[in-house]
Amino acid sequence: MEVKNVKAFGTEAAEAPLEQLNIDRRTPTPHDVEIEILYCGVCHSDLHTARNEWHGTLYPCVPGHEIVGRIVSVGDHVTKFKVGDLAGVGCMVDSCQECEYCREDMEQYCANVATQTYNSPDKHLNTHTFGGYSESIVVDEKFVLRVPDNLDLAAVAPLLCAGITTYSPLKHWNVGPGQKVGIIGLGGLGHMAVKIAKAMGAEVIVFTTSPSKVEDAKRLGADEVVLSKDAAQMQEYFGKLHFILDAVSAEHDINTYLNLLRVDGSLVLVGAPEQPLPVAAFSLIPARRSFSGSMIGGIAETQEMLDFCGKHNIVSDIEMINMQEINEAYDRLLKGDVKYRFVIDMASLKE
Amino acid sequence: MEVKNVKAFGTEAAEAPLEQLNIDRRTPTPHDVEIEILYCGVCHSDLHTARNEWHGTLYPCVPGHEIVGRIVSVGDHVTKFKVGDLAGVGCMVDSCQECEYCREDMEQYCANVATQTYNSPDKHLNTHTFGGYSESIVVDEKFVLRVPDNLDLAAVAPLLCAGITTYSPLKHWNVGPGQKVGIIGLGGLGHMAVKIAKAMGAEVIVFTTSPSKVEDAKRLGADEVVLSKDAAQMQEYFGKLHFILDAVSAEHDINTYLNLLRVDGSLVLVGAPEQPLPVAAFSLIPARRSFSGSMIGGIAETQEMLDFCGKHNIVSDIEMINMQEINEAYDRLLKGDVKYRFVIDMASLKE
Repeated sequence: MEVKNVKAFGTEAAEAPLEQLNIDRRTPTPHDVEIEILYCGVCHSDLHTARNEWHGTLYPCVPGHEIVGRIVSVGDHVTKFKVGDLAGVGCMVDSCQECEYCREDMEQYCANVATQTYNSPDKHLNTHTFGGYSESIVVDEKFVLRVPDNLDLAAVAPLLCAGITTYSPLKHWNVGPGQKVGIIGLGGLGHMAVKIAKAMGAEVIVFTTSPSKVEDAKRLGADEVVLSKDAAQMQEYFGKLHFILDAVSAEHDINTYLNLLRVDGSLVLVGAPEQPLPVAAFSLIPARRSFSGSMIGGIAETQEMLDFCGKHNIVSDIEMINMQEINEAYDRLLKGDVKYRFVIDMASLKE
Repeated sequence: MEVKNVKAFGTEAAEAPLEQLNIDRRTPTPHDVEIEILYCGVCHSDLHTARNEWHGTLYPCVPGHEIVGRIVSVGDHVTKFKVGDLAGVGCMVDSCQECEYCREDMEQYCANVATQTYNSPDKHLNTHTFGGYSESIVVDEKFVLRVPDNLDLAAVAPLLCAGITTYSPLKHWNVGPGQKVGIIGLGGLGHMAVKIAKAMGAEVIVFTTSPSKVEDAKRLGADEVVLSKDAAQMQEYFGKLHFILDAVSAEHDINTYLNLLRVDGSLVLVGAPEQPLPVAAFSLIPARRSFSGSMIGGIAETQEMLDFCGKHNIVSDIEMINMQEINEAYDRLLKGDVKYRFVIDMASLKE
């Protein structure tokens, strides 16, 4: 298969910093579109994968799964897009399309494992997939999203992972007007959850350990902000919340939060703490509560989320960086020193 | 208020054996029925409470919340029952009737705390409630169940707790034909869950640590029995189950079972292990699984369960004992030495 060699930014080893390198992109097949990448968000998963913290990283590793750009060529059978269109690519670039989950628009749960945007076996080339820290990407149009044209394009990029990861559970668990919804952790995911839950009509209560985040949480749309270390403030919400989205990756006492749920309430984990979380039977049984997890969203749902964000004027709060600043950005990410998502201006890669 | 002094069996202290004592029952108010107790099931909660293992036990303690008997008198305003009718009483004898949960027939989750059949403040007498290890009980007709007349009455008693505790989550999570349903733990609750899930039309897979229980699980209706210590057998069910009911009160690795669930599957705890159960984020997130808990059922649902059992000829497998054998029965219960529920022949209390 013919390929095009393009500039990218990645790493050859877990301990090595990211640096410029070259990768091959396939020539678009009849169902593919080729996208010139304009912006790429920086997700904590990028760092985990680059540094092999989840194990199984294939090197060279080119991260990036919050991609927006412009279509520069299309295959003969492409119907959804034309050259010049804006486009987005998220965490997946393919799936089996045949299993029961794919048939139900839940490609993220593909029984045969979806092809991740980076670090998955590449079905076309004899290598693994490379992400959005690159000049361009070639993707089957089925996995390419339309981007609303009324939004700041750079700030749209994080919607492709942080946006859908929070939208999908809020939608799946029917969050809406008349409900009190808790959001735990105000970071890349949490700040999107606040905006989306608010736009869905819920009353939003943010739980944070940082007094410094109170004002910002309110600016983002929170109706109330609770300092989770203040037992009296927490007690006020005992049994009151319909739903909680938990975007904290660090260890935390999940029972404290489960007890804030009403009967039949769910706490859904979208952050992934490394160690198992101890759950007391009596946090669940006396009110038929659920402790659940959720992962990104299907392609149709991702499109729905983008359209929803277009309609409600929702984007991520971002800090723009150049590609060459990625290693410093990773260091700051580890310290939580970003409000609330780094986005790479991919024009910088051309320099 | 006028009272009637009746014989009962209970204990004055956590360390003391149960023995005969006397308690007061109120004279039926206009909405009450008086029930002569014929049979009372022996639930593990009885033992926990008698021995103050959950703390907060009020003494003297008269356990028993799997009660069946015959109505011997009715208040002036009673409409559901007449003298001579069979009747059942389960874990609750009252609730606030006003909160949103009571109004939705979920008295078990009453926001103002339902009155338990034993060990709750008694709203009528200046004492606490006494359970079914007694000659008779007086209960508001709203909390009294009709008992199907085609079933073995003694074997109906455990339906009032073990039956509804398993029926309610199976019903709430829509278990039915076309589904593979796992039941963990073949004891008082588990054996009822097998019968009920099977009658609901599900394919039932029992998970047990005891090879000695395989034949019995099949006799009870299990389609398959998996020895949970056999990793190869467990692996066959990875991602296959729609629902799991977990009736194990001992410590066990919940992640092993969560991983058997399909996308959107739920594992529901009805047993209550003392220590918190460590739950890995990656047992939930990659398949949007839920870990939930459930507690008995509402009164309307309990009636529905009894009617369902009547229709499907479902009762508990029981071993009948005399009241005076209760202390030995508790010792055997602790060893799991009962198939599958002790039921007290309350006629023995008259001797």
